[in-house]
Amino acid sequence: MLTDIEISRQASLQPIENIAQAFGILPNELTPYGKTKAKVDLTITDRIKDNKQGKLVIVTAVTPTPFGEGKTVTSIGLTQGLQAIGKKSCACIRQPSMGPVFGIKGGAAGGGMAQVVPMEDLNLHLTGDIHAVTSAHNLAAAAIDARLYHEQRLGCEAFREQSGLEPLNIDPEQILWRRVVDQNERSLRTITVGLGEVNGPVHQGGFDISAASELMAILALSRDLKDLRERIGRIVLAQNTEGDYISAEDLGVAGAMTAIMSQAISPTLMQTLSGAPCLIHAGPFANIAHGNSSIIADDIALKLADIVVTEGGFGSDMGFEKFCNIKARQSGKAPDAAVLVVTIKALKSHVSDEGLSEMDKLAAGYANLSWHIANVGKYGLPVVVAINRFADDTEQELNWLRERALQEGVFACEICEAFAQGAKGAVDLAHAVVRATEQPNHFHHLYDTDQSIEAKLLTIAEAGYGASGISLSDKAKSQLAQLQLQGYDKLALCIAKTPMSVSHDPKLKGAPQGFELPITELKLNAGAGFITALVGKVMTMPGLGIRPGYLNIDIDERGEITGLA
Amino acid sequence: MLTDIEISRQASLQPIENIAQAFGILPNELTPYGKTKAKVDLTITDRIKDNKQGKLVIVTAVTPTPFGEGKTVTSIGLTQGLQAIGKKSCACIRQPSMGPVFGIKGGAAGGGMAQVVPMEDLNLHLTGDIHAVTSAHNLAAAAIDARLYHEQRLGCEAFREQSGLEPLNIDPEQILWRRVVDQNERSLRTITVGLGEVNGPVHQGGFDISAASELMAILALSRDLKDLRERIGRIVLAQNTEGDYISAEDLGVAGAMTAIMSQAISPTLMQTLSGAPCLIHAGPFANIAHGNSSIIADDIALKLADIVVTEGGFGSDMGFEKFCNIKARQSGKAPDAAVLVVTIKALKSHVSDEGLSEMDKLAAGYANLSWHIANVGKYGLPVVVAINRFADDTEQELNWLRERALQEGVFACEICEAFAQGAKGAVDLAHAVVRATEQPNHFHHLYDTDQSIEAKLLTIAEAGYGASGISLSDKAKSQLAQLQLQGYDKLALCIAKTPMSVSHDPKLKGAPQGFELPITELKLNAGAGFITALVGKVMTMPGLGIRPGYLNIDIDERGEITGLA
Repeated sequence: MLTDIEISRQASLQPIENIAQAFGILPNELTPYGKTKAKVDLTITDRIKDNKQGKLVIVTAVTPTPFGEGKTVTSIGLTQGLQAIGKKSCACIRQPSMGPVFGIKGGAAGGGMAQVVPMEDLNLHLTGDIHAVTSAHNLAAAAIDARLYHEQRLGCEAFREQSGLEPLNIDPEQILWRRVVDQNERSLRTITVGLGEVNGPVHQGGFDISAASELMAILALSRDLKDLRERIGRIVLAQNTEGDYISAEDLGVAGAMTAIMSQAISPTLMQTLSGAPCLIHAGPFANIAHGNSSIIADDIALKLADIVVTEGGFGSDMGFEKFCNIKARQSGKAPDAAVLVVTIKALKSHVSDEGLSEMDKLAAGYANLSWHIANVGKYGLPVVVAINRFADDTEQELNWLRERALQEGVFACEICEAFAQGAKGAVDLAHAVVRATEQPNHFHHLYDTDQSIEAKLLTIAEAGYGASGISLSDKAKSQLAQLQLQGYDKLALCIAKTPMSVSHDPKLKGAPQGFELPITELKLNAGAGFITALVGKVMTMPGLGIRPGYLNIDIDERGEITGLA
Repeated sequence: MLTDIEISRQASLQPIENIAQAFGILPNELTPYGKTKAKVDLTITDRIKDNKQGKLVIVTAVTPTPFGEGKTVTSIGLTQGLQAIGKKSCACIRQPSMGPVFGIKGGAAGGGMAQVVPMEDLNLHLTGDIHAVTSAHNLAAAAIDARLYHEQRLGCEAFREQSGLEPLNIDPEQILWRRVVDQNERSLRTITVGLGEVNGPVHQGGFDISAASELMAILALSRDLKDLRERIGRIVLAQNTEGDYISAEDLGVAGAMTAIMSQAISPTLMQTLSGAPCLIHAGPFANIAHGNSSIIADDIALKLADIVVTEGGFGSDMGFEKFCNIKARQSGKAPDAAVLVVTIKALKSHVSDEGLSEMDKLAAGYANLSWHIANVGKYGLPVVVAINRFADDTEQELNWLRERALQEGVFACEICEAFAQGAKGAVDLAHAVVRATEQPNHFHHLYDTDQSIEAKLLTIAEAGYGASGISLSDKAKSQLAQLQLQGYDKLALCIAKTPMSVSHDPKLKGAPQGFELPITELKLNAGAGFITALVGKVMTMPGLGIRPGYLNIDIDERGEITGLA
C-alpha cells in the first residue's frame, strides 16, 4: 500500500492557476508561491461581494483518540465527493503546525486518496503564515522586555528625556504576553529570562506553540487588513505597576506586528487529489486555541462555491463549540449543516474492559457518539454522521453503528471510504450533506456574551459539556475580578482543555456526567475578542514523545522527502 | 526628498520572469513567489556548468559607523553601473535579518536610487529562508531537551526498551547548541529552561539571532542538497557524560532539519531599480557569523553574468576576511578584485578632537582607510576604493581623499553617487572595476588550515588585525584542548568580534596597534567547517535600543507599509 506522501507525489497536479480559474479567481487576484500553491489577494472580495452565497458545512468529530479520527480525510473526501456529484465545492482548512509534524508521525493534509497536495508543502512552511504569526508575536515580547530594560536602566525622567516616550511602568511580574515557537518544546514551557549582567530585568516567562498565539486567532477572525490592524492594536500585553492594562498600541508595536502579518492575511489556495480547490488559512489546536480556519477564507469560498466544507479541531466539545460560539458569532454566518465524523476504533477506545467482545465494546463506547450527536443538535443544526471506515472494521459493526445512529434522529448516517477510494468513497456522504443543507436552519449560539463571565462559563460547562458545575482557582478568581474591573467581561469564551474527554479529565471516557469543571486560569484576548479559560491540567505547549516523528523524516539529493505521512 | 520605500514603491518593476529570462534562467528553473521574486531551482546548475565563468568582485568597507557606510548601496549601484556600461552583471547579497529591521531604523536593501526592489519584500520574510533556518535550528534544540527528558525520566534500560533507541547520555551542562530567533532579543541571551514540574531537566540556555546559527553558515557554504544534508549530519550538538561529541546524525534529527531547509537552499532572484538581476541568499551579521552570501548563488551567477558583485559584512577585518579565508577556500573560487567602500563621515568618526577643522579630521581619520587598503592588499587582490558620496561632503574633501588613496597605490579610486543617481552615479566605478578584474590575480588565503588552532588565531590576530598577540581565557583553553582531543583542529576560524574597531575594543579607533586579542570562547561548527572564536565582549544576540525602529513602522488598509527606510 502506498504511503500518503507517495500518493501525493504520484498525483498529477494541475497548475494552481488552472484550479483558481475554474474556481472563479482571476489571475490578477492570485499571487503564486511556486506552481502548486498561491495566495488569494483580498482585492477579490469587492468583485465577488454580490455573488450568491453558498452553503457552509462544518465538520466535527467524536472524542478523538491520540492519532485523530480522519476528520480532515473526511472533509477533503467530502469536498471531492461533492465535486463528483456536480457541486462546486471548496474545503477551508487550517495550516498544520510543524510541532506535531515532527512530534508525532504525520502531517495534517488528510490522507490516502483524500489529501491536499502536495502534502509536504502543506505540512512544511506552506506560504509562511505561521512564521509570520510567530515573528509578529515575538516582536511584541521583545518590545516589552526592551522597554522594561531601558526604563529600569534610566529611570522615568532620563528615559522620557532620551527616548521622547512616556514611561509605561510595565510590571515585570504582570507580563501577560508569553512567547511562541512552532515546535513541540516542553523545556520552554516555563523559563527564566533576562539572566546575565546586562539583560534584565529577570523574570519568569515561557513559550506556547505558535498556533496558541492570540495573533493566530486574530488572523482567523479578522475581516480585512484594517480589522487586523485594529485588533492587533487592542491586544493587552501586560499590566503596569498600577494594575492597568498596556496594549500593543500603547507600546507602539502594533503597526510593525501588522506589517509582519500583511501577507499572512491572504489565504492560500491549494488543490485536493481530485483537483477541488482548498483554501488553507490560520492555525490548528482547537484544544488550546480557537482552532478554526479563517472567516476571510470562508467568505471568499462562500461567494465562489455551492458548498464550502470547513472543520473545527478535535471533538464537537472543542473546535465545533468554538466555531459556533466564537467564529460564527463574529462572522455572522451560520453554518447550514454539521458532519460528525466517527470511527469504530474511537468508540471502542472508550471501553477498557478487555473481556468484552468487539461488538459489545462498540455498543458500550457508543455513548460517546450519542453525546456528540446531542451536543451538535443543541446548536440547531442538521447532523450527518460520517463513519470513516478503516480496513479492519467489519460489515456487522458498520451496519450496527449506522442503524444505531439513525435511531438517534440524525439527519443521515453514511459510511465514508474516501481514504481508500477518494471522491467515489464519499458520494453517499456528499448527497446526504447536500440534502442536509437544504433543511430549515435553526442555528443559534449556546450563550449570550452579555452574560457575566461566570454565567457564560457555567453555561458552557453544563450545557456544553454536561458538567454539574464549575470551580474557579484563586488565580482565576482574581483574574476574573481584574477583567471585570477593566471592563472586559462581555466577551466570548475560548476554553482550553484536554480534547481526550468531553470533560477536563482525559480519563473520563464516553459521556461523563456529574463532574465539576475546574477553571484554573483566565486570559484576556482583547484583540481576538474572547477570554481564554484554562481548564484542568492543560498545557499550551506540547512536548516531543519518546520516539518523535522527526526520526523517520529524511530527504534525498533530489529533494524528495520521506517519512511524512 | 523621497524615502527609500517611496522610491521602491514608485519604481516600475518588471515581472520577475522577464528578469530571469534576460539573465538566462529558463521558466522551468524558476519558482515564483509572487510577481517580483522567485526561487532559482538548483536544477539549473547542470545545464549551465560549461558556461564561461564570469568575474567575481567582493565589496568591503572601512570600519563602519553604527548606521553603515552604504556598502549595499555601492554593491547595488555598481551592479547597475556595470549594466549601464554594457556588462551583464548580477549582485549576490544576503537576506536582511528582521532583528535590525525592527531594531534600528531601516532595512538592508540598499537605498536611494540603488536598491533591490520591492524593498519591503526583501526586508520582511522574503521567501522564508531565515524562518527555515530558525525552525530547523530550534527543532534540534527541542530534540536535545526531549531526549534528555525521556532518558532521565525512564533511566537507560527502560528508555532503550520503550523507544528502541540507544541512550545518548547527553550532559545537560554540555549542550553546545543554543536556540535562535530572528529578533533583537536581549532578554533571551541567557535563560533557564526546563522549569516546572514535568519539563526538566533544568539547565541554562539562551538564544542567538538566527543569522548566527551554524545552519545559516551551512546554507551559505553548501554546494548542493546532498552537501547540505551531510553537513547538517555533522553538526555537533552536545557532549555526553563521557565528554564525547553528539552530532545531529547521532540524535536522528539531521534528515528532518534538512527537509525543513529543502527550499531554503535555492537562492531568491529579485531585481535592482534598474532591472539588473540580484540573487539573495543566506544571512548577515559578519561580526558574529560567517556573514557572506552563498556559494550556490555565486556559482549560478558566475555562469550567467560577466561580472558578479558580492559583499562581505562590515569592514575588511570582518566579512571580507571571512570571505577570503572561509568562503573562497571552500568554494575554490578566488575573487578577481575588491571594492573598498569609504565615506568621509566614517573616516572623521575616528577622530574625537572637536578643535580640529573638518579637513584635519578627515586627514587624521584617514589612517583607517589606509589600514583597510593594506589589509585587502594582503590577500593579493587589486583594490578599487569607492568613495560613497553623501550630500554634505565637499569637493575639497572628496578631491583630497581621492588623491590620498591613489598615493597609497590602490588600483583606482572613484566617487560613487549611486544613492542619488543610480546607475549613472556608478559608471566611473564600474569602468574601474572592470579594469581591475582584468589584472593578474594573486589571491591567497591568510593562513593554512593545517596549522594548529593557536597558530591560526595568532596569524589572524597579527596579520589580520595588527595585534601584538593573543590571550586565551581559561574557558577557551579548555575548549581548545577538547577540540584537539576530538580531532577538530584543522578547520578554518570564524572570528566573532566588534565590527566597530579593527581590534576587539570598539573604542580603539583608526588603525590601532600593540593590542592583545583576547579569545574568550571557542565554538565548534563542524557542519560549516570552522571554529568560531569569540573575541572580547561580543554578543551573539543584539538588543532593541531605546527608540526602536518598530515605532515608525505601520501599514495602511491597502497594505502599504510605512517606516521601512
